[in-house]
Amino acid sequence: MTATALSTLDHGRAVTTPALREAVARLDPVCGLAASYHFGWCDEQGRPAEHKAGKAVRPAMVLLAAEAVGAAPETAVPGAVAVELVHNFSLVHDDLLDGDRERRHRPTVWAIWDAATAILAGDAMLALAHEVLLESPSPGAGPAAWMLASATRELTRGQAYDLAFERRHDVTLAECFEMADAKTGSLLGASAGVGALLGGAPAPAVDALSTFGRQCGLAFQLVDDVLGIWGDPSVTGKPVHSDLRSRKKSFPVTWALEQAPDELSPWLTGADSPELQTVADTLERLGAREWTLEEARRRMSAAEQALSDVDLKPQARTDLIDLAHYVVERQS
Amino acid sequence: MTATALSTLDHGRAVTTPALREAVARLDPVCGLAASYHFGWCDEQGRPAEHKAGKAVRPAMVLLAAEAVGAAPETAVPGAVAVELVHNFSLVHDDLLDGDRERRHRPTVWAIWDAATAILAGDAMLALAHEVLLESPSPGAGPAAWMLASATRELTRGQAYDLAFERRHDVTLAECFEMADAKTGSLLGASAGVGALLGGAPAPAVDALSTFGRQCGLAFQLVDDVLGIWGDPSVTGKPVHSDLRSRKKSFPVTWALEQAPDELSPWLTGADSPELQTVADTLERLGAREWTLEEARRRMSAAEQALSDVDLKPQARTDLIDLAHYVVERQS
Repeated sequence: MTATALSTLDHGRAVTTPALREAVARLDPVCGLAASYHFGWCDEQGRPAEHKAGKAVRPAMVLLAAEAVGAAPETAVPGAVAVELVHNFSLVHDDLLDGDRERRHRPTVWAIWDAATAILAGDAMLALAHEVLLESPSPGAGPAAWMLASATRELTRGQAYDLAFERRHDVTLAECFEMADAKTGSLLGASAGVGALLGGAPAPAVDALSTFGRQCGLAFQLVDDVLGIWGDPSVTGKPVHSDLRSRKKSFPVTWALEQAPDELSPWLTGADSPELQTVADTLERLGAREWTLEEARRRMSAAEQALSDVDLKPQARTDLIDLAHYVVERQS
Repeated sequence: MTATALSTLDHGRAVTTPALREAVARLDPVCGLAASYHFGWCDEQGRPAEHKAGKAVRPAMVLLAAEAVGAAPETAVPGAVAVELVHNFSLVHDDLLDGDRERRHRPTVWAIWDAATAILAGDAMLALAHEVLLESPSPGAGPAAWMLASATRELTRGQAYDLAFERRHDVTLAECFEMADAKTGSLLGASAGVGALLGGAPAPAVDALSTFGRQCGLAFQLVDDVLGIWGDPSVTGKPVHSDLRSRKKSFPVTWALEQAPDELSPWLTGADSPELQTVADTLERLGAREWTLEEARRRMSAAEQALSDVDLKPQARTDLIDLAHYVVERQS
């Protein structure tokens, strides 16, 4: 399964990258250099480089969704380029908003240049995404661009929640789902939906694939939140208990807070500062780890279920499910 | 002529504002409040207010362009909302990039809240623009959204030039035209083009109206640059010689620099700091004011000429030209 998913991702990158580079070449020199650097194609002077630029899950999902509805994957390349541009626009802006100086072991755009460059480069990438998508000759390009714009608005809503949650100690589980859906579910849902639309799928197939992507996104975020607390630092590359250190309102924490507010409030509000290992143990004893992983499994089932209700090409359907399992069950 | 233009602007605002408010109501609470405040509809607490929110030239141009190609102006309302959202997305981000704490006598979004709010609210407005435009049932909506995305990418290019120009003393007149075209011409051109596309116009009319808007934008910027040096502070609301104080690479300055580099370089590089009145007098003696106003007149002629080459409704054509003259010849 992992082998299939890796080859799906490799193939997706191979098909998407040339078109993505061609698109980025349209940008002005300032935004173009920042975007190329961010994608790992060059260093900050513009000298060619080949840094790993993320798994490119979203473009692979666009291409597979188009295949699943019976279209040639090439039909969906403008969509693959567009979702990858939107995803990376949001990373460039989020790194600035969150003050993160490093991503994938390299300084972030704002850290190398400045806030202005990060803002402008992100803006330019978002505009470019729509240009590229709307140049597709597919009759589904307009609806696909609408879906992408709608998902982008959700991304900003998710990021606004995220920033607000940092200052709040009463985040509910329902709000946590809403944020994860907006930050992670929306663009994965739109990725599969955009592929289906460009592939000329009827509405039920578009809806099914969108639901698939969205539920995968939630499953991914649930597992990610477990790894942020209990993940092995040597595998995740993050410090041990990293999400506890930042008092992140993650799924395990918000779930446990609703189960046993008295046990967790003193730590969450900063009134008490127990050892992080103690907090992790409390969460585990309350069942937060188990509940979160169980919820992730439920979301994966819902994702698979969505695909079983419509007529799709069997191979592409299998590849989509393999890709989802690979992404959700990854250890880093 | 002014009376007609003012009633065109009033009518455009009356038609566009309800749809614009309805669109902004879709935003999350954080971005929605920031956008509503920016548009002058409320104070920073969300309490209703009615501040003047700019002339809304672009929406008026969208609606008139649709009328000019024989469509009902209502057809173009989603386009009017979309260009106004894109224009204001760029203002919210530019205020942050330029460090401007005040706009229209009120604190700017980043000054009231923070950089994060300004970035997210701008991003959300840009995404919302595409959502609204692509919800139009017009067959021209897709091409219109492409044109808007392309103009948005030009806006970011123009802003990137603008920031780079601040650090350079060798900006050429050609570069100055390129920047003005990207920062001002592109979105005015797209405004007229989007209206024509939503109105179902054939390609020659779309091109003619786009050219009209673009040339108006250049004429506007040329006159604006004259006012930035020689404008009456009691009328423009800006300090006397404001663009000289900031050593802005405006049209009169870049033109004069190419005519007489030896006379202007010492001031422009900061090697010498003459009285600003002396600089203004030098520019005038060299003919920079006269050349800039003459160039603005040439651009207005080109704009009018573009409209005379295609078949348009006479009243709407006249209204478009009146609007252009009003905007270009305004004194503040």
